[in-house]
Amino acid sequence: MKLDDSYFMQKALNEAEKAFEMDEVPVGALIVIDQKIIARAHNLTERLNDVTAHAEMQAITSAANFLGGKYLKGCTLYVTLEPCVMCVGALYWSQLERIVFAASDPKRGFLSKNLSPHPKTSVTQGVLAEEASSLLVRFFQKKR
Amino acid sequence: MKLDDSYFMQKALNEAEKAFEMDEVPVGALIVIDQKIIARAHNLTERLNDVTAHAEMQAITSAANFLGGKYLKGCTLYVTLEPCVMCVGALYWSQLERIVFAASDPKRGFLSKNLSPHPKTSVTQGVLAEEASSLLVRFFQKKR
Repeated sequence: MKLDDSYFMQKALNEAEKAFEMDEVPVGALIVIDQKIIARAHNLTERLNDVTAHAEMQAITSAANFLGGKYLKGCTLYVTLEPCVMCVGALYWSQLERIVFAASDPKRGFLSKNLSPHPKTSVTQGVLAEEASSLLVRFFQKKR
Repeated sequence: MKLDDSYFMQKALNEAEKAFEMDEVPVGALIVIDQKIIARAHNLTERLNDVTAHAEMQAITSAANFLGGKYLKGCTLYVTLEPCVMCVGALYWSQLERIVFAASDPKRGFLSKNLSPHPKTSVTQGVLAEEASSLLVRFFQKKR
């Protein structure tokens, strides 16, 4: 049975929930190849005191480590929020096959900056967007 | 005596030369606060099998670790090549004070993508640009 985008995005949402519980902006990411999850990560910028510790960045490093090569050809990234400029820049270098994201980020997302990933990379958006957004809204309401 | 941009860029070039000797694209970076170098790094994408291991990214992580906080307020980054999309995105989040780069990168540099760092960050370009370029040219000639 072929696992679909919603299946994997739900797993990415589980990662985002771990971030939420750690008082981190709740964003989670997975990298999948041939229907297998090879990297899971969630935002850790506060815990690591490091602006570069976005879920996507950690997932890229971890997947490349698993594959033993720096290019993520044939891989799909699932992430619960539209990647920012930094993350889409990293995804560009990785040459992965697909990016699937849930919630849009009209303020900091790469689409609002007219950026695109590598020409070899396709983008799908809106998978479980409501679930991902509502987790983010809950987080920022709690912070106020 | 106040140390100037050329002084620090020369130190960043020394980092780039270390990358060259390791067969890495020769780019080096420093982060300086109050005339003190708090981070030094050079490109390690091959050695670490990691597209995110640009000199700037490592320098940001290292400086934040030194300062004990994720924001690099009051810091200057010296880097021998114009930062790419990923790196300028990371520099945006870091809110550092200044970016000083040597050689331009018309193909992959952030200026060609109409990106800018944080509004609080100023940019100076062209410091020791010829030295930085010639090291890059030597590297890519050797690769052919």
